[in-house]
Amino acid sequence: MVEFQKMEPSELKAYYADLQTEYEKIKAQGLKLDMSRGKPCAEQLDLSLGMLDMVEYKSPSGLDCRNYGCVDGLPEVKKLFAPLLGVKADQMIIGGNSSLNMMHDTIARAMLFGVTDSVVPWGRLPVVKFLCPTPGYDRHFSICELFDIEMISIEMKEDGPDLDRIQELVAEDETIKGIWCVPRYSNPTGITYSDAVVDGLARMRTKADDFRIFWDNAYAVHHLTDHPQPLENMMEACVTAGHPERVFIFSSTSKISLSGAGVAMMAASERNIAMIRKQLAVQTIGSDKLNQLRHLLFFKDEAGITKHMKKHAKIIGPKFELVFEMLQTQLAEAGIAAWNRPQGGYFINFNTMEGCAKRVVQLAAEAGVVLTPAGATYPYHQDPLDRNIRLAPTFPPLSELKKAMEVFILCNKLAALEKMIR
Amino acid sequence: MVEFQKMEPSELKAYYADLQTEYEKIKAQGLKLDMSRGKPCAEQLDLSLGMLDMVEYKSPSGLDCRNYGCVDGLPEVKKLFAPLLGVKADQMIIGGNSSLNMMHDTIARAMLFGVTDSVVPWGRLPVVKFLCPTPGYDRHFSICELFDIEMISIEMKEDGPDLDRIQELVAEDETIKGIWCVPRYSNPTGITYSDAVVDGLARMRTKADDFRIFWDNAYAVHHLTDHPQPLENMMEACVTAGHPERVFIFSSTSKISLSGAGVAMMAASERNIAMIRKQLAVQTIGSDKLNQLRHLLFFKDEAGITKHMKKHAKIIGPKFELVFEMLQTQLAEAGIAAWNRPQGGYFINFNTMEGCAKRVVQLAAEAGVVLTPAGATYPYHQDPLDRNIRLAPTFPPLSELKKAMEVFILCNKLAALEKMIR
Repeated sequence: MVEFQKMEPSELKAYYADLQTEYEKIKAQGLKLDMSRGKPCAEQLDLSLGMLDMVEYKSPSGLDCRNYGCVDGLPEVKKLFAPLLGVKADQMIIGGNSSLNMMHDTIARAMLFGVTDSVVPWGRLPVVKFLCPTPGYDRHFSICELFDIEMISIEMKEDGPDLDRIQELVAEDETIKGIWCVPRYSNPTGITYSDAVVDGLARMRTKADDFRIFWDNAYAVHHLTDHPQPLENMMEACVTAGHPERVFIFSSTSKISLSGAGVAMMAASERNIAMIRKQLAVQTIGSDKLNQLRHLLFFKDEAGITKHMKKHAKIIGPKFELVFEMLQTQLAEAGIAAWNRPQGGYFINFNTMEGCAKRVVQLAAEAGVVLTPAGATYPYHQDPLDRNIRLAPTFPPLSELKKAMEVFILCNKLAALEKMIR
Repeated sequence: MVEFQKMEPSELKAYYADLQTEYEKIKAQGLKLDMSRGKPCAEQLDLSLGMLDMVEYKSPSGLDCRNYGCVDGLPEVKKLFAPLLGVKADQMIIGGNSSLNMMHDTIARAMLFGVTDSVVPWGRLPVVKFLCPTPGYDRHFSICELFDIEMISIEMKEDGPDLDRIQELVAEDETIKGIWCVPRYSNPTGITYSDAVVDGLARMRTKADDFRIFWDNAYAVHHLTDHPQPLENMMEACVTAGHPERVFIFSSTSKISLSGAGVAMMAASERNIAMIRKQLAVQTIGSDKLNQLRHLLFFKDEAGITKHMKKHAKIIGPKFELVFEMLQTQLAEAGIAAWNRPQGGYFINFNTMEGCAKRVVQLAAEAGVVLTPAGATYPYHQDPLDRNIRLAPTFPPLSELKKAMEVFILCNKLAALEKMIR
């Protein structure tokens, strides 16, 4: 294979015809492969099976976890997870099985009641804006859409979102109330924020007193290497900067234990937590403490979690490697695409030739391979260059992943050639 | 004992002095008893222990319940619980562990987005009012307080809330958007709504097109007798009346399986559910399906639930009987209080002599017996006659319940005598 740009028109046409024949053959196989979402595979879920047959129901302090109560979670479970978020146990709220739910509810409460330091509830303002580093997590953007929050795209750089641009915007615009951040192994770029970016976000002057950072540390311990790049502690950075109320931190064990039956958590300053706890006490009598207890007894402590995460890496590491290797050997030389090599998390960030992402996803779908919809990683599903695709290699078995990637690579070439020949 | 009203002032004084001596003796015992909340006792929770050591994780249709997905719940679990609510399975949403959470969120969504048939979100209106049959459930009232919804008390009659008054109000006032109902073994009155009340609520003309009945059928199968009074099917009544969107039905297994780790559910018309499901898909990727599966495998079918509920009745029936017997033999003749004899549910509705409820709760607390705060069963914690107390006999063991009731009865006499002597 040679670089497409260096090929003669006649060569391109001949190659395109060959690939089309290959594509038609694959289509005839009636594949049904799914690389669309960051789902753990069955083998990963098996790692936590030991959690399921728990017959214990009393917490270490003697609480009957089967009964009502304990609205913000078992104290022992807060202690277990506090190091994950880099906070004190009493800055935490343990939720149900979904951190997305906690993020949604935090925004809903802000719309209805405001946050600490709000003059009026956000929902009473004519316009509310959020900064959205892009490409980013589609479900964050969906929450903004639901609440009619205007999204402003911020470019992701090598070490996090474009801090200069952010500082400029928040200093001037009082209607900008928040920013979405996935600070470690960012979805989908895989980027971990640098200390300079963390500090900058904590320190910057914001026109809105009630500006909040939604710090979705979903991949806090989801390393693919033994020497992960450090991430500065955002809670401490905010306290040091004199903005202790600025950050809401979220995480969950969805990709540590069980994606459908994990434990979600959030953390914030004592003042923020006090306000939320009061509202929470009207919303529920407490989340499922038996499931919290399952996690406590299974993981025991931070070391238990670290050990467990190495088992995950062992399962999904080879899947990432397979994708890197195939892209490198079968696509790199063509010079029509670019991708990253993340050190953790669940995604590979892939850029097609400009204007080809939608076409690649369509071609793959027609050949039986479901990818995350093109544009999903941008606010309003609008990728301005129509090039970004999020690859999620964790769910399919290796054999299926290989097949899916063959199709994906082929579709990239086809889409590029379609453009070049025309 | 004789009727207090028939006693001479000197007799009253002498009796008061005797009771005070008795009270001081009890105080000296340093009791610590709790009758404040409708919590199942440990023996009841033990009934569902068989649910906990489940190692199965695939649903009958083969879904891996450990993974993401299935935002509105397992179809098989909807089918299991549909008869409880008297609805079709596809009119249901299965939630997390808390029906209170589903009620709160339904109101929050109505405030933010309105319901089907709303012209504007409720939160954009200058005032929103709810009808609150009283005495009623304090947590319903807390939700109204949180969202600044004005509460209008409606008197509970023998067969449900005062329908004439309700019809009069909703026909004229467009700002009345809803009513809270616990239609079976109402909290705390124990009343089951008659067919006439159910039909009337379904049929009545409401000035607001988006008026909604919040039908909290928390005690749908929580009978204390073998021949429960029937409750008309509210969903069918609304459909028949031509108001299919009028009702939101809620329930949970909190008092069937495990109060802290049960399964919550709601039901409504297909049109209502479609709107909620769309919003829910932004809020969460789905509730805990493993816990749903636990319930499915443990109860199997409607008959399994019925059989299980008889075991609950066997445990808590004697507690209710003890309370009835003690009140009858030790308090009835005094003529200073009245109470009901519910056929199911979790509470006994108790009325002290007028103006004595707060004092009784205070006296009991000082003697180490915690009761539900007086006034809790009324909007804004204001019982106009200061007489209503909700007795919750299920949680304490029989021996403790007996002791607590002795104190309670004594405090009733003391409070009445204080008033009569003065």
